[in-house]
Amino acid sequence: MKSLTEHLWFEVPERRGFVNITGTVEKLVKKSGVQEGLCLVNAMHITASCFINDNESGLLHDYEVWLEKLAPHEPTAHYHHNRTGEDNADAHLKRTLMGHQVILPITAGKLDLGPWEQVFYAEFDGQRKKRVVIKVMGE
Amino acid sequence: MKSLTEHLWFEVPERRGFVNITGTVEKLVKKSGVQEGLCLVNAMHITASCFINDNESGLLHDYEVWLEKLAPHEPTAHYHHNRTGEDNADAHLKRTLMGHQVILPITAGKLDLGPWEQVFYAEFDGQRKKRVVIKVMGE
Amino acid sequence: MKSLTEHLWFEVPERRGFVNITGTVEKLVKKSGVQEGLCLVNAMHITASCFINDNESGLLHDYEVWLEKLAPHEPTAHYHHNRTGEDNADAHLKRTLMGHQVILPITAGKLDLGPWEQVFYAEFDGQRKKRVVIKVMGE
Repeated sequence: MKSLTEHLWFEVPERRGFVNITGTVEKLVKKSGVQEGLCLVNAMHITASCFINDNESGLLHDYEVWLEKLAPHEPTAHYHHNRTGEDNADAHLKRTLMGHQVILPITAGKLDLGPWEQVFYAEFDGQRKKRVVIKVMGE
Repeated sequence: MKSLTEHLWFEVPERRGFVNITGTVEKLVKKSGVQEGLCLVNAMHITASCFINDNESGLLHDYEVWLEKLAPHEPTAHYHHNRTGEDNADAHLKRTLMGHQVILPITAGKLDLGPWEQVFYAEFDGQRKKRVVIKVMGE
Repeated sequence: MKSLTEHLWFEVPERRGFVNITGTVEKLVKKSGVQEGLCLVNAMHITASCFINDNESGLLHDYEVWLEKLAPHEPTAHYHHNRTGEDNADAHLKRTLMGHQVILPITAGKLDLGPWEQVFYAEFDGQRKKRVVIKVMGE
């Protein structure tokens, strides 16, 4: 069995943002030498997500509007979590809606993705350094 | 290590629908010969889901009503994604709520599921051919 | 390849509740002897979740309020699923929002988690015995 572990760092300059990391994950799968296996992509912070969807700017805009509707930032005093001095309770909820991890199949040494599947890191409480762990496992 | 990869095709005749694929996944696990391992079931299209829940028609109805409430199809012009000529922005959001993949544990050569756990393919933008990838890995 | 399978039992005394199971998962990873691998934590019941987030009581309160808003228990007659004699349709929806499983990376024999990542079992229809399956796989 082969395995590879890498930790990626992100520092998104705004509070919220989407980063397409498909190319980076592809490179790591190649580096691992795994031909048949699985690749875990996991946000290590609890106000960030990793998810798969379309790299289309209109859709990313729609996600932002929709997440703000289902898990609004304001009024911040509405959330008990924010009594700790944070103002990011909504970021925990938004990340829950988007999911925090994906598992990618590796077939014949490559990510076995559909035509429009792209892997994103989503930030909901940015302007600080955060990590994603990538774990490749297989043969 | 053993592994097996299969791509399943679906063509749901309506815009939305649920397909119970538990039996198909069970057959592929048996075919793989894996006794202890993991089985990934992943929708390769970004307007479809794979999820686990109860095979109860009332519940599947409730899911449909609920998804339409949280991520409505109309008004389609409300979504920027639909400016690309699509009308399926809501399908991307619905699939996000339901999740796009599941990992099933394999114990003693069988899916290690609870009494009511069933695996579904959920379509939110059907009437076209779409794929699911199944990846079994273990020993 | 090494693997370990354990089934944990829970009986939450209230209808809803959160149980931090990080320590238990850590012990099982150690017991497995796996140094590099993956650990699946999967709720075997379809009205319960396993998820990762912060162990902060204000946040857990916020989750409860938020889930009740997005997937309300009342009016129970609104849900077709409840015509089966159940009153737990909302629990199926709440569990869908929170997710039903997580995969944890194992690096150098330990869970490779971020500083605030904690693993929870979430109950949405308690006062009965329910199971979680843990599957560790690697080398």
